Amino acid sequence: MSGRLTIALDAMGGDHAPDMVVAGAALARERHPGVDYLMFGDEHRIGPLLARRPGLRDVTTIQHTPDAVSGDAKAAVALRGGRNTSMRRAIDAVAEGRAGVVVSAGNTGALMAMAKMVLKTLPGIDRPAIASFFPTQRGESVMLDLGANLECDADNLVQFAVMGSAFARTVLGLIEPTVGLLNVGSEDQKGHEAIREAAARLRTLTLPLRFHGFVEGNDIAAGKVDVIVTDGFTGNVALKTAEGTARLYSELLRRTFEASFLARLGYLLARPAFKKLKARTDPRRYNGAMFLGLRGICVKSHGGTDEIGFANAIGVAFDLATQGFNERIKEEMPRPGATTGSDIDAAAV
Amino acid sequence: MSGRLTIALDAMGGDHAPDMVVAGAALARERHPGVDYLMFGDEHRIGPLLARRPGLRDVTTIQHTPDAVSGDAKAAVALRGGRNTSMRRAIDAVAEGRAGVVVSAGNTGALMAMAKMVLKTLPGIDRPAIASFFPTQRGESVMLDLGANLECDADNLVQFAVMGSAFARTVLGLIEPTVGLLNVGSEDQKGHEAIREAAARLRTLTLPLRFHGFVEGNDIAAGKVDVIVTDGFTGNVALKTAEGTARLYSELLRRTFEASFLARLGYLLARPAFKKLKARTDPRRYNGAMFLGLRGICVKSHGGTDEIGFANAIGVAFDLATQGFNERIKEEMPRPGATTGSDIDAAAV
Repeated sequence: MSGRLTIALDAMGGDHAPDMVVAGAALARERHPGVDYLMFGDEHRIGPLLARRPGLRDVTTIQHTPDAVSGDAKAAVALRGGRNTSMRRAIDAVAEGRAGVVVSAGNTGALMAMAKMVLKTLPGIDRPAIASFFPTQRGESVMLDLGANLECDADNLVQFAVMGSAFARTVLGLIEPTVGLLNVGSEDQKGHEAIREAAARLRTLTLPLRFHGFVEGNDIAAGKVDVIVTDGFTGNVALKTAEGTARLYSELLRRTFEASFLARLGYLLARPAFKKLKARTDPRRYNGAMFLGLRGICVKSHGGTDEIGFANAIGVAFDLATQGFNERIKEEMPRPGATTGSDIDAAAV
Repeated sequence: MSGRLTIALDAMGGDHAPDMVVAGAALARERHPGVDYLMFGDEHRIGPLLARRPGLRDVTTIQHTPDAVSGDAKAAVALRGGRNTSMRRAIDAVAEGRAGVVVSAGNTGALMAMAKMVLKTLPGIDRPAIASFFPTQRGESVMLDLGANLECDADNLVQFAVMGSAFARTVLGLIEPTVGLLNVGSEDQKGHEAIREAAARLRTLTLPLRFHGFVEGNDIAAGKVDVIVTDGFTGNVALKTAEGTARLYSELLRRTFEASFLARLGYLLARPAFKKLKARTDPRRYNGAMFLGLRGICVKSHGGTDEIGFANAIGVAFDLATQGFNERIKEEMPRPGATTGSDIDAAAV
């Protein structure tokens, strides 16, 4: 990445778009002033919003698009008829080299389908994965896949391990991340065949990661490993289960503090400490699911987020683009021996 | 169930057995005085413990067993060589009609394997499932399978729905429980084929339950449905992820209250309210995973629990046995049309 980074934004994606997208970009600009923006969407709505933010307007180019992908559109439909949507055009900008990364808070299924078709997968990667990070007892961890591939074979899981590790080094700044395969027990004989085979390979391959072995659901929040690798079905359920449980505890806590006068007084005294807790576990801080494994970086923001959350998603996109995430994956992905052999053969012939 | 209920206890199962088992039975006796116990295990260790509790001793028969299943034994090994273990003999007591239900805090894999082999599945049930209940925003819900079957087809999932619904009525006292299938989205086209097919059948079959459709991970703790049906791999990961997240929040809460003098004072004021919160979310209250679908009731207590948790597991066993859980399943399981037909043919011949 030479010179300034350009970030493509799907200005029409998300429940509160385009206002939230423009406000989020304005916030992100304070943290990363050296970024230019390409905003795709309805210029009649984006223009007036930008007019009120001259600083952002100076670094932003609006690219008018007549269509937008709706939140409930099926991926296949969006793929076929969505050529002129803000989402598709924003992805095209990355494919064409006009932007280094794309951020959208729109329909996840459509975004993944379009990104896969337009950007294609990196060499050595059969399928892209969705990754995200979240708070643990020890800091932060990354989990993937969170829903791009409902069923995964051993190859997919090994590739996810390499991508997750590169992500942990790029975004979390870890030197040698530990990687665990999510399973129903930690013993070698547990789980599906695909998991057991992936574990066997991760133990023998030389990779820039420390393979811990199997981890269980409770190990996720405990922070036992830095990277949790699983199939998209299990990962999606685990992530949402954790979110639901966190919400249950917040709600029970709220009820507890409202249970009596003394409890309410107690809350007032502890409030500064609770503000810190709230900041640490704020879902907006962990906003931004990354599509890993594509020839271009695509970050998905939560659809319901606000400008603070969207600015954080832009921040993650910035880290991935400027720290050469994809270059790392290309270098580190183990090539199957057969392929190397035939390359040499081809060169010899 | 006529006359007094007899509960078979694996007195040697669990980290703190047999002390915890005997103490748990003594506690359970206060709540359910009309129960007799058959305790299987080392009489030289159980005898002195019972001698100190004359009330319990009067309703307990010790059945000496020379062996015990170790916590890390593989299921297959325990199955072959475990004929004289306390676990196996306790299950045998249910199969022979000497006890109405068995409770063990021992090795889960061994317990499931032995229970399956000795008790066999109920008519219409292809595979047993492990179920448990837990707190939600709306009260309590049941989830199954939690690990007995890593992969499930549509038949299994439909059977789990019927069993889970019978369980919710028996143990949670619900009249017409709502049932949801755990998936990665709520739309019809989401998920594996087995889930989609199970959903189609649950929509058309006449069953004593209200089928809600698909639910997602965050719906579990929200209490969107009373019964969550899933395969054993996903269920195990979801349950443990929820436990891990709950532990993370307790830990963050503890740190928050220790963060400053004012926060500590705040905790002191709110302490009575927090005691109630703690009681509501106490894992011991939700101790007891039930093996459903067998011709005999088997309750698995957490291995690391104390006497309070074990007494709760006995309480769940009591409810299942006295409220005719298995009789309900036998009545309510939809029979495949073909089977009914051939029964009639056979009777006509």
